[in-house]
Amino acid sequence: MPTTTREFHLVARPQGEPAPTDFALVERTLPDPEPGELLIRNLVISVDPYMRGKMSGVRTYTDPYELNAPMDGGAVGVVEASADPDVPVGTTVLHNAGWRSHAVVPAAHTRPVNTREPLGPSVYLGALGMPGQTAYVGLLHKAEMRRDDTVFVSGAAGAVGGVVGQLARLHGARRVVGSAGSPEKVAYLLDELGFDAAFDYRAGPVRKQLAEAAPEGIDVYFDNVGGEHLEAAIACANDFARFAVCGAISGYNATEPPYAPRNLFQIVTKRLTLRGFIVGDDPQLTGDFYRDVAPAVAEGRIRVRETVVEGLENAPEAFVSMLRGGNVGKMVVRVSH
Amino acid sequence: MPTTTREFHLVARPQGEPAPTDFALVERTLPDPEPGELLIRNLVISVDPYMRGKMSGVRTYTDPYELNAPMDGGAVGVVEASADPDVPVGTTVLHNAGWRSHAVVPAAHTRPVNTREPLGPSVYLGALGMPGQTAYVGLLHKAEMRRDDTVFVSGAAGAVGGVVGQLARLHGARRVVGSAGSPEKVAYLLDELGFDAAFDYRAGPVRKQLAEAAPEGIDVYFDNVGGEHLEAAIACANDFARFAVCGAISGYNATEPPYAPRNLFQIVTKRLTLRGFIVGDDPQLTGDFYRDVAPAVAEGRIRVRETVVEGLENAPEAFVSMLRGGNVGKMVVRVSH
Repeated sequence: MPTTTREFHLVARPQGEPAPTDFALVERTLPDPEPGELLIRNLVISVDPYMRGKMSGVRTYTDPYELNAPMDGGAVGVVEASADPDVPVGTTVLHNAGWRSHAVVPAAHTRPVNTREPLGPSVYLGALGMPGQTAYVGLLHKAEMRRDDTVFVSGAAGAVGGVVGQLARLHGARRVVGSAGSPEKVAYLLDELGFDAAFDYRAGPVRKQLAEAAPEGIDVYFDNVGGEHLEAAIACANDFARFAVCGAISGYNATEPPYAPRNLFQIVTKRLTLRGFIVGDDPQLTGDFYRDVAPAVAEGRIRVRETVVEGLENAPEAFVSMLRGGNVGKMVVRVSH
Repeated sequence: MPTTTREFHLVARPQGEPAPTDFALVERTLPDPEPGELLIRNLVISVDPYMRGKMSGVRTYTDPYELNAPMDGGAVGVVEASADPDVPVGTTVLHNAGWRSHAVVPAAHTRPVNTREPLGPSVYLGALGMPGQTAYVGLLHKAEMRRDDTVFVSGAAGAVGGVVGQLARLHGARRVVGSAGSPEKVAYLLDELGFDAAFDYRAGPVRKQLAEAAPEGIDVYFDNVGGEHLEAAIACANDFARFAVCGAISGYNATEPPYAPRNLFQIVTKRLTLRGFIVGDDPQLTGDFYRDVAPAVAEGRIRVRETVVEGLENAPEAFVSMLRGGNVGKMVVRVSH
């Protein structure tokens, strides 16, 4: 029962914004699953900001993508053939063999997901997946958000930021402030996600807009953007504010050195704590995350929106669009139905 | 029994490096102590980097110095007249009415010090005073230094840095690395204070010298300097390194915006924690500090050196010299014997 897969290989290291020629869609025949393995047909695959780092070829907390090999990434698929007696054909599983139509994966590297959720399987790539857990861990465990904090999150209309803001509200924030890259996204934050204030960071200086949106200062900053946003958050921070530093998407495609905040001495005078983190470092929090967030998503207390691109062949464009801010909520690519 | 004091007033806000004309030495007659007050003759007074911030007129964690009023600051003096039955004449006390020869101070704002120490009263302005406690709190409680950490401290020949390095050694650091501003200071760190490696930051790029001095990376950074030093420490940090951010003396006299590190995204990829702090926020640690550090100083396991300037009238020059790095160890001004 050999199966053909189509899979994206990285064939060149992007300089600046990734170009279509950095990727190649390759067809090859998959072997039958060995004992303990599953053949999976992907339904949806994920494009995430962290993947840009893996394309650059530099080892950080994760290995870079190899050239001329399939890229990995989050995916949800259906088991089409199983050589593991515990995983029947037809099971829907979350796994990490994304950027392709089919894959043979050890069952131990997969996790069955609940297909009775009111939301589709892609929710496990967003609010109930890595981005949602990133929001949960960063806000509650790294920034140690407390009731009555004023919370600011940048990139608030993205997969992580939207969950951060809604979790902050559910955990008793005094005020939730978000930044996003268009008036439509600002309206989404205010009207759909219940932010108390939001601004379009392209419409004027971040520092000035943040000071107006949080006139009493901020106690927590969840940073997805870096650069000018980080400088503005330091400027508007209250004493003892805590920053969860999650990403710096403003610099991911940069070929010049990034914008550098000039006010770092306020880390001392305001006694700020900046804590960088990676969600994978705290697997022991996964249980807490599901217990807290899954019911909130199922009951609509955390609202979820997705930007869905149809067709595996469009995954590179979806990825580049996401880095430009072309998504509202989680950006996913639908590979099959 | 009226007494004349000589006291320094700030008469102009310094622009860049403070000038002699920013200060005025004023003579005035002190009143007799009211009930609960002490008349103190100062022996030694302190000049500290944080005072530069108080001269600038901007409120941060502390009020700025007022113009045309005496400046405060650490001092040790002898009680010459007492209107508090619990404090006999002749007691040596630590207090905050520095920058002057005599002062009338509420006894409740003073603390008797042990004059049987092998070191003189000025040790309470240095290793057993605010700078020593800053070192202790920052290294052990903010950076949470652990046995086998490699510890880097900038400004290591100063009042705080020298204690940081020696405390790190006493607490089982794998390797203690310091930077300082001259070959003589580097020799002092290596030969007298027992640092494992040290370099002269004026002799070449900090990042390159730090990478050579700590080839296996650093786990803790105690930052007294900021700017290029902070960038270098981020570059050389190991995963999960912790930074106690205490000061940024490189920028205190700056009239231009300070050097801005370009590599802040490594806060995420290396999961760094940067924690700004002020020693006064943790008064509950004072007892631990004395229990840990006082015996080490008394027994010579923590070595103390001072740069003593003679004469109250030379206090502004001492202050400016300290900001330029003209001191080895704590800079103090002797006011009387």
